[in-house]
Amino acid sequence: MTQWIDEVFEDNVRFGLAGEILVEQQSPFQKVTVIRSDRFGNALLLDDCWMTAEQSEKNYHEMIVHPPLTTAESIERVLIIGGGDGGTAREVLRYPGVKQVDLVEIDELVVQVSKQYMPGIGGSAWSDPRLNLLIQDGIAFVQDAETASYDVVLIDGSDPAGPAEGLFNHAFYAQCRRILKDGGTFATQSESPEAFPDVHIATVKALRDAFGYAAPYYGPVTLYPSGWWSWTYASPTPNRNRQPDEERLSFIEAQTEIFNRDLLQAMFAQPNFIRRALA
Amino acid sequence: MTQWIDEVFEDNVRFGLAGEILVEQQSPFQKVTVIRSDRFGNALLLDDCWMTAEQSEKNYHEMIVHPPLTTAESIERVLIIGGGDGGTAREVLRYPGVKQVDLVEIDELVVQVSKQYMPGIGGSAWSDPRLNLLIQDGIAFVQDAETASYDVVLIDGSDPAGPAEGLFNHAFYAQCRRILKDGGTFATQSESPEAFPDVHIATVKALRDAFGYAAPYYGPVTLYPSGWWSWTYASPTPNRNRQPDEERLSFIEAQTEIFNRDLLQAMFAQPNFIRRALA
Repeated sequence: MTQWIDEVFEDNVRFGLAGEILVEQQSPFQKVTVIRSDRFGNALLLDDCWMTAEQSEKNYHEMIVHPPLTTAESIERVLIIGGGDGGTAREVLRYPGVKQVDLVEIDELVVQVSKQYMPGIGGSAWSDPRLNLLIQDGIAFVQDAETASYDVVLIDGSDPAGPAEGLFNHAFYAQCRRILKDGGTFATQSESPEAFPDVHIATVKALRDAFGYAAPYYGPVTLYPSGWWSWTYASPTPNRNRQPDEERLSFIEAQTEIFNRDLLQAMFAQPNFIRRALA
Repeated sequence: MTQWIDEVFEDNVRFGLAGEILVEQQSPFQKVTVIRSDRFGNALLLDDCWMTAEQSEKNYHEMIVHPPLTTAESIERVLIIGGGDGGTAREVLRYPGVKQVDLVEIDELVVQVSKQYMPGIGGSAWSDPRLNLLIQDGIAFVQDAETASYDVVLIDGSDPAGPAEGLFNHAFYAQCRRILKDGGTFATQSESPEAFPDVHIATVKALRDAFGYAAPYYGPVTLYPSGWWSWTYASPTPNRNRQPDEERLSFIEAQTEIFNRDLLQAMFAQPNFIRRALA
């Protein structure tokens, strides 16, 4: 039965898709909902918040992956915290230089429904021998990981409430810095600068403190509050985002739907109100 | 009474604000609705589509105005077609170099409710002696205007259905080019590249044909379908958007909330799917 399925944020704004509920189940961590939408194919909600959809996911997944992957010194070992839908792993595994991806997702049900109802989002990542899927707590994983053991660390979690809350604080970011190599790169989703400006600014500042260098970047994600999203890039080397690996960049921009070398520059431009808040 | 007020697009996506309806009236041209929203203050809908809101309008108005205003050879005479809420005129009139703004709005009711319920959007523009408000058909106005009589032409209309339909075609753009000086600049809203990609691409191509040079640019507008919007810049001189007037640019970026010199470059970056569609 087709109905409206809405995410309501701050009690006074809603974004809804017409569709049919396919799965609605409580995992040990959160409510997991899968719908068939008329507009974007099958879609995933966690705790009634839009996460991804089959025909509306490239803006998010290309943006979290390609800035750090085109600018790291090496990309052999990549860690993804969260990302249970598989989209981030799929984009990472496009690069032949990647030898191992550790995908650490806390909620097995997210992986299970994503594979079953949105198989194209993970795509060939699920059967790629380079993918090491671990169902466990990402915060504990990072705590226990060896120092300087990853080339790239990506935090692909949900909002800072529920299971992802511990992904938004200085102690966690300091651990991420510790496990990253000196030539490495880091990116996290960092919320909407319009809908959640305080969390956004606090995240950038905490990352600057933990890594030495951090720069927010911006792009559209229709499904998310305000439609305007941010990620934040961080690295121990200042301005590493300005020095892409030419071979990797040419390789990837030939196959992406959104990302290219112009956007790699443009996405870091800060609107005045952000610039003032970060000054 | 607080209720949900939604814009439904393509029958299967909706964006809604909680609020109270203050005005709902049929003008000779369209249905005009004003609400008091919990999130964004008072807001205007035309034919049930979100147009603007008191606390969510700068992303739109700064974007349509400042690229053409910072890059035109001269800015003495400016024409705005549509724009009855006054926000575009307000941003234009920030520049001391502007001597006359002809604001041609077809629907007097839009001006009336904007002045009454959203006075801050037009702000001091409404009492500025440089503003020449004309309630008439913008297409006929452009048809009758003198050749090479404007420095800047801005098309701030609604979607290409209803009264704004004639603002989206080659014959109209050719007239806009005719009335523009050779050193002049033009911008129009050009729909969402995600929600309405066909209209967006057709608009850019028609403008290239009419002006010789046209470049789309992109930014967030939460209230509009997909949250990701476009405008298209056009000029008889190629790449005029890359050569801002330094004095005007420094002056304006000191007072804007969004726009600045970094964004003036960044906003013209095209995602791959747009680049391929325009190739």
